[in-house]
Amino acid sequence: MKPFGIGLLGCGTIGSGVVEVLHRQRELIRRRTGFDLRLVAVADPSPERLAGLPLDGAATHADGLEVVRRPDVDIVVELIGGVRIARQATVEALRLGKTVVTANKHLLADHGRELWAAAQQAPAGLFFEASVAGGIPLLKAVREGLVANRIRSVRGILNGTCNYILTAMQETGAAYADVLAEAQAKGYAEKEPALDVDGIDTAHKVCVLAALAFGCPATTAQLPATGISALCAEDIRWNLDWDHRIKLLGLLEREGDLLRGGVSPVVLHEDSLLAKVDGVFNAVLVEGDIVGQTLYYGRGAGRLPTASAVVSDIVDAAAFRLMPQDAWTPRWPVADDPVTLRPLTFDQGRFYARFDLPEGPALAEQAVRAALARHRVPVQALQSGGFSPGSRVGLLTGECRRKTLESVAAEVGAVAAPLLLPVRSFTSG
Amino acid sequence: MKPFGIGLLGCGTIGSGVVEVLHRQRELIRRRTGFDLRLVAVADPSPERLAGLPLDGAATHADGLEVVRRPDVDIVVELIGGVRIARQATVEALRLGKTVVTANKHLLADHGRELWAAAQQAPAGLFFEASVAGGIPLLKAVREGLVANRIRSVRGILNGTCNYILTAMQETGAAYADVLAEAQAKGYAEKEPALDVDGIDTAHKVCVLAALAFGCPATTAQLPATGISALCAEDIRWNLDWDHRIKLLGLLEREGDLLRGGVSPVVLHEDSLLAKVDGVFNAVLVEGDIVGQTLYYGRGAGRLPTASAVVSDIVDAAAFRLMPQDAWTPRWPVADDPVTLRPLTFDQGRFYARFDLPEGPALAEQAVRAALARHRVPVQALQSGGFSPGSRVGLLTGECRRKTLESVAAEVGAVAAPLLLPVRSFTSG
Repeated sequence: MKPFGIGLLGCGTIGSGVVEVLHRQRELIRRRTGFDLRLVAVADPSPERLAGLPLDGAATHADGLEVVRRPDVDIVVELIGGVRIARQATVEALRLGKTVVTANKHLLADHGRELWAAAQQAPAGLFFEASVAGGIPLLKAVREGLVANRIRSVRGILNGTCNYILTAMQETGAAYADVLAEAQAKGYAEKEPALDVDGIDTAHKVCVLAALAFGCPATTAQLPATGISALCAEDIRWNLDWDHRIKLLGLLEREGDLLRGGVSPVVLHEDSLLAKVDGVFNAVLVEGDIVGQTLYYGRGAGRLPTASAVVSDIVDAAAFRLMPQDAWTPRWPVADDPVTLRPLTFDQGRFYARFDLPEGPALAEQAVRAALARHRVPVQALQSGGFSPGSRVGLLTGECRRKTLESVAAEVGAVAAPLLLPVRSFTSG
Repeated sequence: MKPFGIGLLGCGTIGSGVVEVLHRQRELIRRRTGFDLRLVAVADPSPERLAGLPLDGAATHADGLEVVRRPDVDIVVELIGGVRIARQATVEALRLGKTVVTANKHLLADHGRELWAAAQQAPAGLFFEASVAGGIPLLKAVREGLVANRIRSVRGILNGTCNYILTAMQETGAAYADVLAEAQAKGYAEKEPALDVDGIDTAHKVCVLAALAFGCPATTAQLPATGISALCAEDIRWNLDWDHRIKLLGLLEREGDLLRGGVSPVVLHEDSLLAKVDGVFNAVLVEGDIVGQTLYYGRGAGRLPTASAVVSDIVDAAAFRLMPQDAWTPRWPVADDPVTLRPLTFDQGRFYARFDLPEGPALAEQAVRAALARHRVPVQALQSGGFSPGSRVGLLTGECRRKTLESVAAEVGAVAAPLLLPVRSFTSG
């Protein structure tokens, strides 16, 4: 069998993992698939990153476009990160009819339509398993394994950094800022953590999933995203006392022609499978109209888990290149039932509410209870405690409206906007 | 695009589900994949089963071989069940170069080598996603999503009937026989339940997974299988008191060149994800050397979930038929590192042990504690209770040898062989 020439753009953490996996598993993959995957060229602007890697004779370049244009490169693996250069290289590769494998959720979220149009026009293949949920073969499961299903919902823990921070807060009782600092020291969180902790990275992944699972390409501007930085130690501890956990979820929920999407911390009962997913792991619940509920769990980031997904895409890219060109099929996100994307807002339902008041706990609790009673908000659990200067009251409500809880906050003279998190249970349909 | 002609053999529960899904989702699948999947012929010896199904003009036959031999049938879907006729039809279809989709784990476990040899010789394609874990796209995940991984272990809840029974025992405190009778009345268990409750169905699935994940075709004769029929209400309740759950697991664990496989009830801490899988759901932990631990969860049986897997195989079969013949690749289980299969025995480790003694609880417990102390078996938890005529003592041990616990049973004059279940925790490597 003719070998497939692979050109790798970007040799940082993930890229070096891909080099290692291709080197270690090349023979195994050849036996399993019949494909001879040859790394022929690697590009990175920092040549010192390439030193010591098992390149197996691959040529090295400083400029990624040189690799894209090499005639011996069939499959371009884009691991540059960022948007500008990655976009240029990806579009050029697709235009040349190369098959592209990318892990770049940011690029896909911002420029997915353009890339998919370029891929269709060439025609060329575009694979992006590693862009969502790291090593978990989630996109393959949704696109191929559930091909007979209209997807009803996708809900998941898609950011390992946030899940690590929430798990550590839960286990140690520590404050958000302290846990974040520790995660940064350990390398689990970036020095500039906003992309993770503000839910933006999760929103990028939700965009990719909206396109893949619902044929509805989305941009982050269309998705409300709330991160985890407003959570305090009491939020975590009280929910733990009530057998609940807080998880940052990306959510897509379809009802008829409407698809609602967003990112938010969500309160889950401890019996929920997602509530049990701890540390840097990801897990995604996918519900189809035929199969019902399915869940996929694994490492959502990291050098080798992500490389596992990239290399499985390379194998699929090789198979794709063997298909006759007139058999080229989009396999999403190009065509599906038309749906309209709307922001997922939590206007009504059950809530975890936390009010920060200037008084001491006893008075604060009394005021909150009285206001809740006036507004007929059902209270399922309530706790209060001091913080400087004043106190906090947290509670789980029954069904009520968000606006009502905002009125309660105003009436009790809360010193800040209340924290209002949806309480959800995802039972199988 | 040329349509693909589908011939369906067997129109029972799953077959009628496949007819329904092909009818309902044909247009959706065409839009997503470009494939026009046409049901051209259906065979079932009971014509009344075909009445009322949306056959969309498909021809009906009483004899499956007639369908296999029709020139307009490209893809044969074998849902006959059983082994003899299914084997004959599958081998004939492969011999004729048709692509076969089957859900028949029993056939694959008993005659997998023969079928894979026939598929290679033709060459022809053989797809069997629905044979293990129902609607969960588990085999696709292992074979394609984790193609860059040597698999280290596969451990899972693979039989929904047993998991339903264990969950009901846990929730109601009822005895095994009562819960089984109720499951039979509800249609969750067969009138002849041995295939499920004795672990044979799970063993069939373990055989398929051994071939797929380790390139090591196995037969049930090579796998020790223990079912759930020896479990009593106390086993479930005591473990629940100790924050543990009993689950029937299929297990494959690789160490170097050795692959150990078997089926057994296993005691898991409630924090384990598998311990949280309740009712008819299945879940499978798969560990790869690159990706680490992954888990897949969903409905492991049922008409539509299984049809979801069958139809995704039909789509893959259509894609396979478009590949040039010289690009035909086995994609397992034909070739992998050679491993030798050995029975998975639990000779050493932590155990849940239950001894049935003729005395009352106080005396029995005293005798068991004394014997355990003599043999230096670490005891982590112990309970006792009456049963007629005598009493039961159950305990969780620390590390010890199975033989030691058998000696304890003999010394205390147990009236039956002790129940000894492994206590395992599957942490990520």
